[in-house]
Amino acid sequence: MLTYRDAGVHIDAAEELLRRLRPQIRSTFSSAVLADIGHFGGFYDARFPGYEHPVLVASTDGVGTKVKLAVRLGIHSTIGQDLVHHCINDILCCGARPLFFLDYFACGRLDLAVAEQVLGGIITACREHGCALIGGETAEMPSLYAPGEYDLAGTIVGLVERSRILDGSSISAGDLLVGLASSGLHTNGYSLAMAALRQHDLEAYIPELQSSLAEALMAVHRSYAASLLPALERGVLKGLAHVTGGGILGNLTRILPPGLTAVIEWTAWEVPQLFRYIQRAGQIPEEEMRRVFNLGIGMVLVVAPEHLTEVMTLCAEDKPVVLGRVERTS
Amino acid sequence: MLTYRDAGVHIDAAEELLRRLRPQIRSTFSSAVLADIGHFGGFYDARFPGYEHPVLVASTDGVGTKVKLAVRLGIHSTIGQDLVHHCINDILCCGARPLFFLDYFACGRLDLAVAEQVLGGIITACREHGCALIGGETAEMPSLYAPGEYDLAGTIVGLVERSRILDGSSISAGDLLVGLASSGLHTNGYSLAMAALRQHDLEAYIPELQSSLAEALMAVHRSYAASLLPALERGVLKGLAHVTGGGILGNLTRILPPGLTAVIEWTAWEVPQLFRYIQRAGQIPEEEMRRVFNLGIGMVLVVAPEHLTEVMTLCAEDKPVVLGRVERTS
Repeated sequence: MLTYRDAGVHIDAAEELLRRLRPQIRSTFSSAVLADIGHFGGFYDARFPGYEHPVLVASTDGVGTKVKLAVRLGIHSTIGQDLVHHCINDILCCGARPLFFLDYFACGRLDLAVAEQVLGGIITACREHGCALIGGETAEMPSLYAPGEYDLAGTIVGLVERSRILDGSSISAGDLLVGLASSGLHTNGYSLAMAALRQHDLEAYIPELQSSLAEALMAVHRSYAASLLPALERGVLKGLAHVTGGGILGNLTRILPPGLTAVIEWTAWEVPQLFRYIQRAGQIPEEEMRRVFNLGIGMVLVVAPEHLTEVMTLCAEDKPVVLGRVERTS
Repeated sequence: MLTYRDAGVHIDAAEELLRRLRPQIRSTFSSAVLADIGHFGGFYDARFPGYEHPVLVASTDGVGTKVKLAVRLGIHSTIGQDLVHHCINDILCCGARPLFFLDYFACGRLDLAVAEQVLGGIITACREHGCALIGGETAEMPSLYAPGEYDLAGTIVGLVERSRILDGSSISAGDLLVGLASSGLHTNGYSLAMAALRQHDLEAYIPELQSSLAEALMAVHRSYAASLLPALERGVLKGLAHVTGGGILGNLTRILPPGLTAVIEWTAWEVPQLFRYIQRAGQIPEEEMRRVFNLGIGMVLVVAPEHLTEVMTLCAEDKPVVLGRVERTS
């Protein structure tokens, strides 16, 4: 006699998880959220007063193999923040502010304590950014994920006034590239980093990092909303590139109009020790480092020279540095 | 000397995938999609002319361990349709029509041919439903997924006029429950089904199923948009319950107002042979069958008696059957 429980699926656990988290999830709601949790969909008011031509901006992302590290280290409370911050940074690049979020949490066996921490991180980040968590899916898939393992992804929907969409089209030769500091690897390059550090003790204190590798690698993906939303409001940005897979150049290429190229001064900032440590451990070529990692720069702003001072002031908290310029391709 | 490729991540393959699929993805776009693929977010016009009080409805879902079966059988072209149809059915339950979709495809090793088929199914379903595929994430996570394995999830955003939101609040005692036929297991109960069928040859022809188990189990999750969008338009539905995890009763409970209960006549329709076959194979108790599987009913409509004839006509293609009624809890 076989039951769903025998097959490794625990519907009751999923219901208990929702019951425990409901008050916290509700704390992310604004008056724009129209109904309660548990229906087949989440409801969000789409009237957007004050907007002449509102445009929705949506993005889906995961956190890559940083989840593997979270599981290995037993640190589950911040991976949700990584996810939400990643998504928020992506839509900031389009000029949008966040409206709402939905998560996908898939695991081998639903461990309530772990799931509560993972979703707790999502809730924290959503609340901090005025972003309502209006939906999500918790999937227990015993045959796909090993016990203890999980994957995490999410979708954000934001809003921008059409005339304020940031698509890089106004970028021109002579514009400056301003880099904002990252907090670490963010959510990219973990497969390479962990291959390089295969033989290393992640818990040992490393003097040059002033922390353990574990701590440095788990640093939360930085959100740039606090700096960039005011800068977007003032209209002083011509383009934004979130430095994810593809590195600084790979992501700048996504927003540069044809005929223009980004010239980076790679010595303009000091690459954090963590990246150098990984590079040495894996003997990773410099070119590969640039293609995979953010190297200390989590977001690149394209700014007209006349707005440079204002932008540097608005982003002061994110340690802005001029790291290059836009030029014509020759 | 270590590279990203050595660590099992192939950025070029992900780019090639997008290059190959771009024309198909574009074919899902309407004039409401404002920008092209490849930016940090997808853009969707949020003016919604003709709506007095537009409300967005969002839902995230996966396809459960049906992905495992897809991999085992090497059938990758329909799992994307399963996903999109599941999501569409979910927001139909809120009264909404689909606007746009974003997918999450995570795999152990990015196999272009497989990914193209999986995403091809998503694209087909999106195009058929006038739903724009405006974003997605393809993640290669060699340490989390075994080679050949993948997971699939997606997020849909739809639209409903506020006064037309279907939340079950108008349901009253005496309303009738109309079931629409499912095409098979849809995307629920696969962990239990596969545990029950562990020792069975999935490829062998089974006379009572008039197909192989493989074929029956991979049947595409039915979309009810063609029947239900016109019925929603006419305002003849008081509630809709998509029969997913939790079964017929579990999902009806999500929409019934307090003080009301659903009384199901379990003999009102013939449970398809596939479910009975699984039940026998796993000696699964009847109660467990009802809690896990749709048992041949993929969607339940709550209808006032005076609208029954009209609803039965509108949904004729989905073989509607009256399977019970709403009563006061005693």
